[in-house]
Amino acid sequence: MADGAAGAAGGGEDQARPRGRRPAGSDTRGDIVAAARAELAQRGYDGASVRSVARRAGVDPALVRHYFEDKAELFAAAMVPTGVEPAQVVGQLLEGGLDGLGERLARAVLEVWEDEHGERFRVLFGALGSSEPHVQAMAQFLGRQVFARVVAELPTPDADLRMALAASHVVGVLIARHVLQLPEIAGMGTDRLAALVGPALQGYLTGPLADVRSPDRPTAPLAGAHTEEDYSSHEE
Amino acid sequence: MADGAAGAAGGGEDQARPRGRRPAGSDTRGDIVAAARAELAQRGYDGASVRSVARRAGVDPALVRHYFEDKAELFAAAMVPTGVEPAQVVGQLLEGGLDGLGERLARAVLEVWEDEHGERFRVLFGALGSSEPHVQAMAQFLGRQVFARVVAELPTPDADLRMALAASHVVGVLIARHVLQLPEIAGMGTDRLAALVGPALQGYLTGPLADVRSPDRPTAPLAGAHTEEDYSSHEE
Repeated sequence: MADGAAGAAGGGEDQARPRGRRPAGSDTRGDIVAAARAELAQRGYDGASVRSVARRAGVDPALVRHYFEDKAELFAAAMVPTGVEPAQVVGQLLEGGLDGLGERLARAVLEVWEDEHGERFRVLFGALGSSEPHVQAMAQFLGRQVFARVVAELPTPDADLRMALAASHVVGVLIARHVLQLPEIAGMGTDRLAALVGPALQGYLTGPLADVRSPDRPTAPLAGAHTEEDYSSHEE
Repeated sequence: MADGAAGAAGGGEDQARPRGRRPAGSDTRGDIVAAARAELAQRGYDGASVRSVARRAGVDPALVRHYFEDKAELFAAAMVPTGVEPAQVVGQLLEGGLDGLGERLARAVLEVWEDEHGERFRVLFGALGSSEPHVQAMAQFLGRQVFARVVAELPTPDADLRMALAASHVVGVLIARHVLQLPEIAGMGTDRLAALVGPALQGYLTGPLADVRSPDRPTAPLAGAHTEEDYSSHEE
């Protein structure tokens, strides 16, 4: 399992098995991720293994483990499209400030998963249904990479809840578009869809939240009366 | 496959194989649905078969086919919790008029899938990832049973698009709650969650939609200041 790990660490790419598939300087990590993606698509998360990914990529399993701590991390990376750097995406999102953040968030996420007509998202979706630990790993990965950074920028109270609500919506839109393929959602461009969905996301991120502290919803100290001046409740 | 179908049709429950498991007057359809649910949970949609469900329920496959036209219809029924009658749910939803429809919709859908801590929804979710034809069948089933009826009551233009947007959000919330189990979403009661999500759904159903009519959406003045009277089209 961990044989040769030391040798693999630190630019050890060139030492991988000499199969004629790993020229020096090639993007080894990228190749591993691509192999993981193919493995996932063919076997699903439960059937996929680090060893098999190493075989597909033509490298030693230790090299895979050099780049990815465990199976969950490897396949999480495989589900993010090539070239997408979460930190960079988030940075661009936040550049424009809070104004229009909802629409920018929607557009960014839609565009990330637009590749190959959503094929990669469907792979992710299939994996989500497969095993509990993986679901957690993926959620944590996405949480760390993207959502936590946006939350950190929100000046509103209940930032975690706000981000969870926005994320719920975004996930649903991706599923409607790429898995259920609802014609109304799947048939439009990302710009238009982002414009339609943006206001709801914006509402979650910076608008008032329902104040639900009644009997059945005990203390539930959601956003009470905050805002710049007024995140007033729109319930009762 | 279709042996004995004639005999099975029309209250033929009592004629099912005398295995001592089908007393007259029992809820045969309910038993079949329960068997289908168990089958789904154990084998997933792709592995599940009508014949195997019949065996589990102790009935002839023809009897299963008497109640359910095909595999998709059988398993679609299995994914709706026992005792839930979609037409009735929709009726209650619409009783209160358009006011607060978003929150009522959210609460109804949440409650339907709240059983067994969402176990049934996870079964549905797993099935969704499994096979393309089934995804379509499920989407159509849900569409026919629920969404089409709500759409029919909407006085707003673009009713199908509105319902698709609302449905996308609802699906996302269910996934966040029962599959991803995001703590902020999974940890609260259905009333509170419905109150939080309701306004966004209401906005989709009866509020202004982003105006995105240009080539790549030039004019795109997001939800400006519209009112009830101002349901200007955002298409063409």
